[in-house]
Amino acid sequence: MSNLKPIIILVDTQLAENIGLAARAMYNFGLENLSLVRPKIGWPSEKAEAVSVDALPIIKNAKCYDTLKEALVGVQYSYAFTARSREMDKKEITNEEVVKKIVLNENQNSNIAVVFGGEQSGLTNDDISLVSECVSIQTDNLFSSLNLSHAVTVFCHSLFALQNSEKNNEIRKGETRVVDHSKLHHFFDHLEHELDVRGFFEPIEKKPSMLIKLRNIFHRAELSEREIASLRGVLTSLTKYREKQEK
Amino acid sequence: MSNLKPIIILVDTQLAENIGLAARAMYNFGLENLSLVRPKIGWPSEKAEAVSVDALPIIKNAKCYDTLKEALVGVQYSYAFTARSREMDKKEITNEEVVKKIVLNENQNSNIAVVFGGEQSGLTNDDISLVSECVSIQTDNLFSSLNLSHAVTVFCHSLFALQNSEKNNEIRKGETRVVDHSKLHHFFDHLEHELDVRGFFEPIEKKPSMLIKLRNIFHRAELSEREIASLRGVLTSLTKYREKQEK
Repeated sequence: MSNLKPIIILVDTQLAENIGLAARAMYNFGLENLSLVRPKIGWPSEKAEAVSVDALPIIKNAKCYDTLKEALVGVQYSYAFTARSREMDKKEITNEEVVKKIVLNENQNSNIAVVFGGEQSGLTNDDISLVSECVSIQTDNLFSSLNLSHAVTVFCHSLFALQNSEKNNEIRKGETRVVDHSKLHHFFDHLEHELDVRGFFEPIEKKPSMLIKLRNIFHRAELSEREIASLRGVLTSLTKYREKQEK
Repeated sequence: MSNLKPIIILVDTQLAENIGLAARAMYNFGLENLSLVRPKIGWPSEKAEAVSVDALPIIKNAKCYDTLKEALVGVQYSYAFTARSREMDKKEITNEEVVKKIVLNENQNSNIAVVFGGEQSGLTNDDISLVSECVSIQTDNLFSSLNLSHAVTVFCHSLFALQNSEKNNEIRKGETRVVDHSKLHHFFDHLEHELDVRGFFEPIEKKPSMLIKLRNIFHRAELSEREIASLRGVLTSLTKYREKQEK
């Protein structure tokens, strides 16, 4: 599990309250590095400080830049939260996906930045062209525009909650998750073969949907490589008398 | 899956912005019923309306009460978000747990209310004594006090995200989840027996930890009753040649 703490970058922010509230949410959920790009208010801001409550050190240590490019120096991977689907040729993922990538350390100890645009018009296309991937928070279809500090809260809380649930899962600590799906697929093939030779899939027309349901169970369990090896051991053990019979 | 939409009840709210922002977050994530108890501002409030943006209908339709007791008439199950651990004899669960209970409809189509106290001092002990269970949002140890509208956002987003992930899981739609753990435990016993007679657990001192790891895989998959029945069918099929051998 990654202990990396992404930097939060707020671009073109118009309201001091939102900077203070974003800092408060960051502090609630264990993040600490805040950068501002072209804030539309005077900086430092007494209002932002007052609203941040106990998160004052985050506001005091916030770095201020003229361009997103400068704020991204030293960052190896960056995600931009955008409300609208852009027509740019940029990969778009969900909040849940980015949080999972960070917790599972898919970017391999890179310095990560998470970027949020201004209240009125979000990020410019030029700014978006500087980041690695775009992220959208899934919302009800009726109203997709989140308050800026709420968007920061959703990200920080989701990251903290997943890190926390990973920490609580002592059994799996230090194990590598399946990135390479082929090991999982070998287990599926092994299971399918053993069930096939015993005539499990009856009627045969239902085999495809039965297989999907079975595979789904194991997909949902998000198995580590060690767990897949255990399940293959279980399968071998359960079927070994048949093997002997055949010899 | 439950399509129930809990009522959000804000008690003793001091800032109009927080009511408007709570309504905005509710609307972002598909909730619509808002009740206010003893708001510390004049009501209706132009400021709350302005801040709510597109969620204006939620503000316009909000019901206003003098007491929490009145606001809870017709509600069968209620959860109060509290920051501090109370010394009252009241069950306390996490945000993730309450969201899961609602999505899995564990309260069986009851009308549900989710209650948030005021910015300064939260809910009174008297108000807490009126609700079914207390909920806390897990935070970093350094700073546990969430902004009111952020707490509402965390709940509404978590509920929406889980409902959404359930909806996307077409395979399991309409199935009953395991509430009764005994079916899962029968499957565990069945698996353990079949592995035992084949000498799977070697060395035998390691059996307890091997069993825990195996059970964990299936716990994590959150099996439905139908899925447990499928897995028992798989187990029976995989081992049936041994059964024949014994006869």
